[in-house]
Formats: sequence, structure tokens, C-alpha cells
Amino acid sequence: MAEEVKLLKSWSSPFGLRIVWALKLKGIQYDSIDEDLSNKSPLLVQCNPVYKKIPVLIHNGKSISESLVIFEYIEDTWNHNPLLPQDPYHKATARFWVKFGDDKVLPSIWSAFIKQGKEQEDAIDEAIENLKLLEEQLKGKKFFGGEKIGLADLALGWLANLVPVFEEIIGMKIIDEERFPSLLAWMHEFSQVAIIKESWPPHDKLIIKFQALRDRHLAK
Amino acid sequence: MAEEVKLLKSWSSPFGLRIVWALKLKGIQYDSIDEDLSNKSPLLVQCNPVYKKIPVLIHNGKSISESLVIFEYIEDTWNHNPLLPQDPYHKATARFWVKFGDDKVLPSIWSAFIKQGKEQEDAIDEAIENLKLLEEQLKGKKFFGGEKIGLADLALGWLANLVPVFEEIIGMKIIDEERFPSLLAWMHEFSQVAIIKESWPPHDKLIIKFQALRDRHLAK
Repeated sequence: MAEEVKLLKSWSSPFGLRIVWALKLKGIQYDSIDEDLSNKSPLLVQCNPVYKKIPVLIHNGKSISESLVIFEYIEDTWNHNPLLPQDPYHKATARFWVKFGDDKVLPSIWSAFIKQGKEQEDAIDEAIENLKLLEEQLKGKKFFGGEKIGLADLALGWLANLVPVFEEIIGMKIIDEERFPSLLAWMHEFSQVAIIKESWPPHDKLIIKFQALRDRHLAK
Repeated sequence: MAEEVKLLKSWSSPFGLRIVWALKLKGIQYDSIDEDLSNKSPLLVQCNPVYKKIPVLIHNGKSISESLVIFEYIEDTWNHNPLLPQDPYHKATARFWVKFGDDKVLPSIWSAFIKQGKEQEDAIDEAIENLKLLEEQLKGKKFFGGEKIGLADLALGWLANLVPVFEEIIGMKIIDEERFPSLLAWMHEFSQVAIIKESWPPHDKLIIKFQALRDRHLAK
């Protein structure tokens, strides 16, 4: 059967981008449908009625939502170029850091980005504590997955992709050379991988997009 | 090699209890270590340095934290009595509802339990919207997993276990017969499964425990 793979995403969302990376790593051909999130398509609402959010993967007419669930689906469906190690313990370790990224690192960095004053300071402190744990994980390793990119790299890839954008907008360094040499080396290494590099949204466009998002949050 | 399986849990935490259920479903022998969460053991802090939370599974000296990660580890390590269906799409569906339970249902019901006044009313409204989605999933099915208990049943089992306790304490019905006939039938069915029943903490003890927890929150 000819496979039909569609991905509903937006051009700037890290949750959509991580799925782009996973599909590219697996070498899966897919149609990309960019959603305008201020005017969601009937298809998006129909395919993800619970959250009405991107990303949604539609595979042979069946839709799967939630990026971490989509990751596992991709891994279960196409076994080649595995995103997860074989060993159950190493698999659990990767899943632990994937979850830590979304549960802890992402909210703290997002707060550091959209808050001001004392709230921002607290968020930066929290972000730094979280990032220190990632720094430790990366010591002596090229990627979270070891020599090869794995699920934790894809799930945490937004750090490489967006933190420099956030830092430029708020005029403050969060991931600095002194505290985070391994993390910075990883960010650089990750961004240079061909399939990652080719799908990286333009920095200038991201600056405009996230500056506007920050302004909207601050105006609330 | 003789397997050594230890589970750090507390007697009342739904996150620990779901792992007890998973191990029992698989028929895995394990040593249970009940933590006093007001005075965490050095073992807990050592095994889960990031969160210092239960549950932690220690398998042949290696520790795995985060209940959803532990679920997957158990499934990957012991293949018999599968918690997840074979088909990747059905697997994704189960994982979607597991995640929805922890991300949406649990926080809304917890807020409905520990808040008062308008905040409580809003939380109850949100909880009911979330529960309606679960009700729909259960229509015509015995368990979320179909005829057999699966991962979503274990992950959502706290509903059967704790909602009646919460309802008794706040003197208000959340999961009522009129709106949630399938969910109530599932709660009953689930609670009657032998391995679930035998590990159910005593209702009276839960009432005392969660009444005290609620009082502490309200006093804040």
C-alpha cells in the first residue's frame, strides 16, 4: 500500500519542528501542511478535537496528536534508523529527559522569556537549575543519544533553535559558555546536522515572530 | 540472573499505586518500600535526584523514575501480559489518553478538590469537560483497553480510587450517574479486578489522609 503521511504543523512551533526532524531522520516522505494558528483549519479541529493543536500526524487517514505520542508512533511504525536505543534502561533514560524537557525546561525558559522583573529573575534561576542537569547529561557526549542523534536530541532541539532567539530579544544570555560549555557545544553540533539545518526556520523571521508574541504577553 | 525489583512508593500516592498495578498485572515479584514523603529516605534522593519523588523502580540496581516512563520500562522489559496493544495506532491512542489523564484530568480534579468558591466552581467545570471526553472513550467498552485492562486503565485508575474519596470530603458529586454512566461502570469494573482490589488502600485511611492534605492547602 502506498503510504500517505501528512503533518499539520506551523512554521515556527518547536512541537511541529521536532516531528519534522523525526520524519526526516527516518527518511519518511510526507506532505507538510502549515496551519495558521490564529485561524485553525477544519482539518486540524477534526483531527485533534481534544486540543485543536499542532502537530498532528495523519498516516493513511488516521490522525495522531501530541508530539511525544507522535514520536513513539513514528518509532513503532518505522523501525529503521531508531530514535530510541534498544536497551530498556537506556530507552527509559531517553524518555526521562524528553519528559523533563517538556515538563520543566520548556516552561521555565518560556517564563524567563515572557516575564519581567522579579518573575523573570525567578524563572531564569529555575531555568538555569534545569539546564545544569542537561549540562551534566551531555558531559563527554556529542549528543544526548551518544554518538548519534536520538529522541532526547529531537525533543530538546528547540533549545538550539529558539534559545538564541529568546536571548537576542530579551538582551540577556541564559545558556552561557562558562556554565554550559557542553550544552553550547551540543547546540552547535545539533544545528549543523544536515537534516536539522535544512529545516531550521530563518533566524530573522523567528525574531519578528517571537518579539510579537512577547509583546502580546507583556501587554496582558 | 535472579531479578531484583524494588519499588519506592507511598501507601496513598496514585502514582505509586499505578506501578503496583502494572507489576501485578505482569506478575512480577517485587519488594515494596514505603517512603515517608515528609522525611524522604537517602535511597529515594539518590535514586531520583532530579525530582526526589516516588515512584522509583529499581531493577537489578538501576533506577527508573517518573511513572509514565516506568510504565514503558515495564512493558519493554517484560513482554508478557502486554499493557499496550500491538498495533502502533492503538498504542498511540492509549498513550494519548494516558497523557491526557495526567496533563488535564488530574490537575482539574485536584483543583476541584483543594480550591473553594469560584476557583473550585471553575475547576469542577473544567474537570467535567475533561471527564466527558473519557466518558465518550468508554462508551460500549468495558475498559479503556477494550475487554482487557491496559495502560490507560492503570494510568486513569486513580479516578476509581480517589474521586469517591474527594467527593465524600467536599460533599459534592463530580462523576454522577446522569452524565457519566460509562465512567461509573468502568470505575466499578476496574475496582473489582482481583489484583486491583487487593492493592486498594483502605477508604477510611484515604479520607483521613486527603482531608488533612485539603486542610493544609486551604490554610495556605
